[in-house]
Amino acid sequence: MNAVPSTLQQQTDQLSETVTRPIPGSRKIHVTGSQPDIRVAMREIAQTRTPTLFGGEDNPPVTVYDPSGPYTDPDVSIDLSAGLAAIRARWIEARGDTEVLTGLSSEFGRAREHDPKLAHVRFPSRVLPRRAQAGANVTQMHYARRGIVTPEMEYVAIRENQRLDLVRDAHLRAQHPGEAFGASIQQAITPEFVRDEIARGRAVLPNNINHPESEPMIIGRNFLTKINANIGNSAVSSGIAEEVEKLVWAIRWGGDTVMDLSTGKHIHETREWIVRNAPVPIGTVPIYQALEKVDGRAEALTWEIFRDTLIEQAEQGVDYFTIHAGVLLRYVPLTARRVTGIVSRGGSIMAKWCLAHHKENFLYTHFEDICEIMKAYDVTFSLGDGLRPGCIADANDAAQFGELETLGELTKIAWKHDVQTMIEGPGHVPMQLIKENMDKQLRECGEAPFYTLGPLTTDIAPGYDHITSAIGAAMIGWYGTAMLCYVTPKEHLGLPNREDVRDGIMAYKIAAHAADLAKGHPGAQVRDNALSKARFEFRWQDQFNLGLDPEKAESFHDETLPKDAHKAAHFCSMCGPHFCSMKITQDVREYAAEQGLETSDALAAGMAEKSAQFRAQGSEVYRPE
Amino acid sequence: MNAVPSTLQQQTDQLSETVTRPIPGSRKIHVTGSQPDIRVAMREIAQTRTPTLFGGEDNPPVTVYDPSGPYTDPDVSIDLSAGLAAIRARWIEARGDTEVLTGLSSEFGRAREHDPKLAHVRFPSRVLPRRAQAGANVTQMHYARRGIVTPEMEYVAIRENQRLDLVRDAHLRAQHPGEAFGASIQQAITPEFVRDEIARGRAVLPNNINHPESEPMIIGRNFLTKINANIGNSAVSSGIAEEVEKLVWAIRWGGDTVMDLSTGKHIHETREWIVRNAPVPIGTVPIYQALEKVDGRAEALTWEIFRDTLIEQAEQGVDYFTIHAGVLLRYVPLTARRVTGIVSRGGSIMAKWCLAHHKENFLYTHFEDICEIMKAYDVTFSLGDGLRPGCIADANDAAQFGELETLGELTKIAWKHDVQTMIEGPGHVPMQLIKENMDKQLRECGEAPFYTLGPLTTDIAPGYDHITSAIGAAMIGWYGTAMLCYVTPKEHLGLPNREDVRDGIMAYKIAAHAADLAKGHPGAQVRDNALSKARFEFRWQDQFNLGLDPEKAESFHDETLPKDAHKAAHFCSMCGPHFCSMKITQDVREYAAEQGLETSDALAAGMAEKSAQFRAQGSEVYRPE
Repeated sequence: MNAVPSTLQQQTDQLSETVTRPIPGSRKIHVTGSQPDIRVAMREIAQTRTPTLFGGEDNPPVTVYDPSGPYTDPDVSIDLSAGLAAIRARWIEARGDTEVLTGLSSEFGRAREHDPKLAHVRFPSRVLPRRAQAGANVTQMHYARRGIVTPEMEYVAIRENQRLDLVRDAHLRAQHPGEAFGASIQQAITPEFVRDEIARGRAVLPNNINHPESEPMIIGRNFLTKINANIGNSAVSSGIAEEVEKLVWAIRWGGDTVMDLSTGKHIHETREWIVRNAPVPIGTVPIYQALEKVDGRAEALTWEIFRDTLIEQAEQGVDYFTIHAGVLLRYVPLTARRVTGIVSRGGSIMAKWCLAHHKENFLYTHFEDICEIMKAYDVTFSLGDGLRPGCIADANDAAQFGELETLGELTKIAWKHDVQTMIEGPGHVPMQLIKENMDKQLRECGEAPFYTLGPLTTDIAPGYDHITSAIGAAMIGWYGTAMLCYVTPKEHLGLPNREDVRDGIMAYKIAAHAADLAKGHPGAQVRDNALSKARFEFRWQDQFNLGLDPEKAESFHDETLPKDAHKAAHFCSMCGPHFCSMKITQDVREYAAEQGLETSDALAAGMAEKSAQFRAQGSEVYRPE
Repeated sequence: MNAVPSTLQQQTDQLSETVTRPIPGSRKIHVTGSQPDIRVAMREIAQTRTPTLFGGEDNPPVTVYDPSGPYTDPDVSIDLSAGLAAIRARWIEARGDTEVLTGLSSEFGRAREHDPKLAHVRFPSRVLPRRAQAGANVTQMHYARRGIVTPEMEYVAIRENQRLDLVRDAHLRAQHPGEAFGASIQQAITPEFVRDEIARGRAVLPNNINHPESEPMIIGRNFLTKINANIGNSAVSSGIAEEVEKLVWAIRWGGDTVMDLSTGKHIHETREWIVRNAPVPIGTVPIYQALEKVDGRAEALTWEIFRDTLIEQAEQGVDYFTIHAGVLLRYVPLTARRVTGIVSRGGSIMAKWCLAHHKENFLYTHFEDICEIMKAYDVTFSLGDGLRPGCIADANDAAQFGELETLGELTKIAWKHDVQTMIEGPGHVPMQLIKENMDKQLRECGEAPFYTLGPLTTDIAPGYDHITSAIGAAMIGWYGTAMLCYVTPKEHLGLPNREDVRDGIMAYKIAAHAADLAKGHPGAQVRDNALSKARFEFRWQDQFNLGLDPEKAESFHDETLPKDAHKAAHFCSMCGPHFCSMKITQDVREYAAEQGLETSDALAAGMAEKSAQFRAQGSEVYRPE
């Protein structure tokens, strides 16, 4: 820690105070697997008893998926300068197919490491990287195809199940039949199912061997829908401490993976701080950094520079790389008549390179070389949609779909190397054209996981694109997209601040959960059921705590009814104390139950008598006990 | 105006200063119909020229639908104490089928009018109400069925078309084919089509003859999707001035109708202020007020009290009434096992009444009596879904669908009386169950317009239910819902403030527009196309102005790049000045166009030569002119 100067040290110390407090009403739990070091983190939300008036029963705690890592665990002390505990290190080492290098393999990495001018921003507790032994393939897909269930696979099986086996209450378990559009939804996830899905390429488990701090998670349409949050300092804004804080903030609210899209001057050092402190997989777009190495001149990019960048980042522990290898020379002119041309940064870099050289995209021509690097560190491909539509008008056009077909070809090549692969998708797409995207992706890419940005369902709402896109995200998630890349309210306008990140994540947690409900994921409705029961019973605090954002729910409530007493009140702010529909409903329920009015036949008999009774009892909801 | 005390006067004066300024970059225009007093208000958004680097052409102004009324028209001076101009008065009078009454017909109205204690809140410029002459039926449906095209119908035809005939640019007109699920989407709306849709009951034009201030609008699935915003003072909060301000605020951002859900002590007077100053149709739930007249005791409600309330509100000019006539006694016990029982206030009031009396709902038994009142003032039915599901678990159950079937029966009865009718819908519904709601509604209710609240697609996000519900709203709008009732972020938690109202409306404008795009409404994509072209060409101000919320878009932009100069800059804040994908795309486009690289055949030839040229020219986007 002595290498960290006081300014950065102070900033990173502050993190723990602001964004690491436990989430209200809940606690971190760990479910142990077949060996003691498989300790799967979850969040358990406590519930209070049902008020006596409503029946007085106990309400079981609700377990929810929790990507927030040790930051929300009061038992763990956080030291950002040391990084998180390397929970996977022993598993990686035990496989015996990797070696610890004597130094960094990338030229760029070595140069940065010895540059005294970078001492003030360098991560102080760097360990030496690992790489596959010569000839070895260390991907989860490789293990899966050889029939090996890794501890990582077991971890995600436990994680996906969310202790659903403990939920025995029939009302909590009740769920509508889903429509899964051909997905293979399981009643319970077994480690063997995880292995099989990874082996088939229908799911990815992105965990670089140099990122042993990460808690394993899985991306595939037969698992819970995941979301990604982007962070990244640009030339215009943001520093290292701010980016690490954004990471912690993003996972606090539910980011399942985080992409570091930094383009600024300490991109290498920022990334190191992020990866070392990330309990979630980190994705990057290596071409951004490669471009900086050639001073922003796309035409000066070379395979050698790009290759060095891949190795640099792979040895830092980046878990997945967005690679725009499908931007083929022949597709580029297809974008010329678009309204918004090429809006993907990576796509436009490669398009410029292709035009300048009139050669095929070097990411495409070197694709098997890239596979060799990916399998030496277990980096997952996120095959970039460099030609995604940037507006409604350009949706589902020849350029976009041509590239998707090429991504399908590349998927098969990656799979030949047992390299895990997911496919990035659009973008801006009107609702009636969304399903065509999903169906074509499944067909072309052999069911490799789809990872989409939105899509935004209209262009006309700058400032609200988290909403225009949450609509499309929920739909495409339902249709089968495995991970949804968030969009913040600042999309198209500026860089997101902390509240924008939170708003973007919330919109996407909603979209992902709505998709899980619609697909019929077992247990997806438990949290809805628990929250709605709490709402009905005026258990305000339980309602807040079961929600995606307890802090906001409570603060909104307090704006109208600030007194603590109101949180125990059996009315809500919408109708005031004198009239409340839930109050009346409770009346209906008690009455119907007491009188045995369960069927319309029963109603037909004795109406007048019952009416008289009801009025004689005061026609009131709450009778003195 | 002398009757208005200084406090209220001051508050209502303040309105004009805060919420009536013109919307940035646009102006109010009026399109004249077949007679000079048919002056259809629209908003025209100006555009700047395309920068020379991008081609230098003029960009035509874009006309958009505008429910904001005279408040955003700098040529109109607003006097809330006088009310808006009665633009429809002459049309109503000219039909010769109404009479001006000598006083209010409702007992309650008369009592309030002469109560000196109410002087400080009473609207000062009250005129005498109109009613149909004995035996006459003054509904737009009645005229429509007799083949009469009213000025109101002509107004909405012009309004729906939004001057699309003036948009000649092929790029602006370009639009993807829609999927309308059997809707009858027209290339251009004629007055005759409007008449026919109203006659068939597939659309409603809610304009009470006592609300001549309203600008005609239409609700039906073959027209643009509309949204409703709710306002209303509850016992806990809000006063008259605040409610009128909310009205003006809600229509400023795009509310097509406004429901006044007040339950407080000056409910009658508040409503008068609202209706007199509303250029949009106003809806109410009369049972709320009726309940207050019996001190909140649902069982004390009588047909006579309710009837007096209907007449009271009809003579104030309320344009549509939510009537929970489908809450039948036999459906009530079906809710007893629900997770959240009956969540509709109106539904629970009627359920309580039914149980207390063990009689059938008096709104059902008196339905034809209600029709007689509706047709005497042209009040439109909004048949309430009193048994809508209040949580995901309760969606699409027997109670909900039983009630919907009854609403279908009632629709036919209303139509027998030529009373305009729309049907309210849920609620909380997971995505895979939404379409069943729409399909059943169309089938049961003979294609009467559906008017849904959301639906919310999950229960787990209190604080973000504008988003959980915008997802469902966009989908059900696509499937055929004619009007979407907004939900604000405060839903389930508290009363919305001004920013919540804006957020709710924006979420619903997005949902409605996404639905119009998906259905393939002619011209729906013009605004998307214009905005995206502006975005591509770095016409920042045009991008803001073409958006749904120019003020927020600009303020978000300015957070990252506050300097004015940046609004002319050819880069954006996401990538900074040194790298920008749009900059590169422009390069691709110019290059492809100049070199004739329109097909991949062209690409095959002369690669090396072109590459050399490109680099010789500096490989730069912007060449000196």
